Amino acid sequence: VGEPGLDLFPTAAWNRLYARRGRSSARELLGYGGGQGYWPLRRAIAEYVAASRGVRVTADQVLLNRGAQQAIDQIARVLLRPGDQVWVEDPGYPVARRLFELASAVTVPVPLDRDGLLVDAGSRVAPHAKLAYVAPSHQFPLGSCMPIDRRLALLAWATRADAWVVEDDYDSEFRYPGQPVPSLQGLDRADRVIYVGTFSKTVFPALRLGYLIVPRDLIDRFAALRAAVDHMAPTLEQATLSDFIDEGHFARHLRRMRAAYRERQDALLDGAKRELNGCAVVEPADSGMHAIAWLRRGLDDEQASRRAGERNIEAPALSSYCQRLVLPPALLLGFASVPPRAIPPALRVLRSALDGGR
Amino acid sequence: VGEPGLDLFPTAAWNRLYARRGRSSARELLGYGGGQGYWPLRRAIAEYVAASRGVRVTADQVLLNRGAQQAIDQIARVLLRPGDQVWVEDPGYPVARRLFELASAVTVPVPLDRDGLLVDAGSRVAPHAKLAYVAPSHQFPLGSCMPIDRRLALLAWATRADAWVVEDDYDSEFRYPGQPVPSLQGLDRADRVIYVGTFSKTVFPALRLGYLIVPRDLIDRFAALRAAVDHMAPTLEQATLSDFIDEGHFARHLRRMRAAYRERQDALLDGAKRELNGCAVVEPADSGMHAIAWLRRGLDDEQASRRAGERNIEAPALSSYCQRLVLPPALLLGFASVPPRAIPPALRVLRSALDGGR
Repeated sequence: VGEPGLDLFPTAAWNRLYARRGRSSARELLGYGGGQGYWPLRRAIAEYVAASRGVRVTADQVLLNRGAQQAIDQIARVLLRPGDQVWVEDPGYPVARRLFELASAVTVPVPLDRDGLLVDAGSRVAPHAKLAYVAPSHQFPLGSCMPIDRRLALLAWATRADAWVVEDDYDSEFRYPGQPVPSLQGLDRADRVIYVGTFSKTVFPALRLGYLIVPRDLIDRFAALRAAVDHMAPTLEQATLSDFIDEGHFARHLRRMRAAYRERQDALLDGAKRELNGCAVVEPADSGMHAIAWLRRGLDDEQASRRAGERNIEAPALSSYCQRLVLPPALLLGFASVPPRAIPPALRVLRSALDGGR
Repeated sequence: VGEPGLDLFPTAAWNRLYARRGRSSARELLGYGGGQGYWPLRRAIAEYVAASRGVRVTADQVLLNRGAQQAIDQIARVLLRPGDQVWVEDPGYPVARRLFELASAVTVPVPLDRDGLLVDAGSRVAPHAKLAYVAPSHQFPLGSCMPIDRRLALLAWATRADAWVVEDDYDSEFRYPGQPVPSLQGLDRADRVIYVGTFSKTVFPALRLGYLIVPRDLIDRFAALRAAVDHMAPTLEQATLSDFIDEGHFARHLRRMRAAYRERQDALLDGAKRELNGCAVVEPADSGMHAIAWLRRGLDDEQASRRAGERNIEAPALSSYCQRLVLPPALLLGFASVPPRAIPPALRVLRSALDGGR
């Protein structure tokens, strides 16, 4: 579900840039360095998120890390104290919930509607929460995009409650009808939003590079935690990524992935009409890397997911992401990493798993 | 002080291995992978530490991480609860102390003698401590090597107290008279020792690769924390390092560094006799990457260090590593990263800083 189309990655270009850096500046990139990462990369990220995501940022607010998991872990360690309440989306990203709980915070599941997190519901259940964790541009797993009035309501609550909002913007680059929607961070006038970005989806997961964008007041606290727990030396890979962005490979790769993912999703939707007919309906996704297959009433999605797994098809059950909310049975189907020709056969295998579950 | 001789690193060989991996197996090393790192590297590490450090280990006990800081952070998070007492060496490595305190543990400074940590003193002050953090093969900053009877006493205390011992083996590869001493872990028959190793000194700091070796019972707990907070995808760099070790470059580089560091230390000792005469005496170091310059009585080492810093000479004051113990004034002088010909001029600058401090 979360794996990007690595078959599309321009490996040769990446290796060429890496080798060039290895020849020209290996020595300067071997040592301990500053501990907050490679400065030109932080600058390139600031420019990119300002232009493409409407984030208001300068390079010193960009703190490199090892991806969204480490970002959320560091947010929890810097901003939360034991017992603090945290709003999490229900259904939502279970890894984030686990990380907040690891910091001894108390997570409060807040239900969603079609527009994302119900701010009113959150305000009723936990008005004094210290933090809200959301994926407003592409909710995981339901895929909704939060409209502007809901975003403003969330920011207004955070300002009132003196709470933080974590915006996890993990795959909003892949938006199929039109342009990506601007970030929540760009609407924030009260310095409440911590923005989480990652290159796991847009470059490759093993790169283990992501970034936090924090309000200016918090830079020192986040930098101090980073310095204590995980020195982020500037590396050849960071310099290579910086070149990859500066020389246009990144933008080109994003365009290519967007087109390919659209094609892959179309293959999924077409194929599902034929192969899953009467058994499941796949809902088109406006963005991201997976679609939701709503199962025929009466099917158990956990069981269906298990049977699919036995047939080597990864299709997580929607209910496995729910805490209190009860939703109709559904499976998540990732399409980003599957070439179009491989989709119909996979759907036939899935069909047999669903039939087996009758 | 802690920076290795990067001028000696075989950059060309490293880049060649990386490029070869980039061509042959980039695709398989781009994704999320298993989350505990590249298996052949874990196996290569197990073989290396067994052969060179007498560590008793199989590859599944080797957990990759981002270096010693992250290792200690994870140890604290897995093994300690708020309020737990931790023995730390006085003087000792301040980063470790800070990390234990970040986990809300209470650090207890335990004084050293020539043979390292005074186990009896620790047992008197904090008999029920949960963990002892030591660098037995090369104490930082004093440089002592713990003899076997002291090691056995430490292990006996840990077994009695049901406590853990963290063995930080950060630079024991560089031992000048004879072979490296075997690890504490190799003496442990009660599964009390967590071994911390790093490639920051032996390969290069920006690689950000180290490893924990944990008793079999703890593998799952450490792996679970790693999976939650920082997915350790197998990467091209891990595969490159694995090749670097397997094809003999690592052992060759260690031999070369050991010879070069010996030469650099000799240049420091010779130069100091001439340049620091009457002002400081540099004590030969049996191992590691720095020596201690004991200052003439009456000099203030913090002030001397500051004056040296103003002249662009990094020479930390010994007293800055002490918590309660009071030692004569001294500076730490790193020699590993300084070519021999650059040492006498640097000592002359240091001399002027010390004279200015009269």
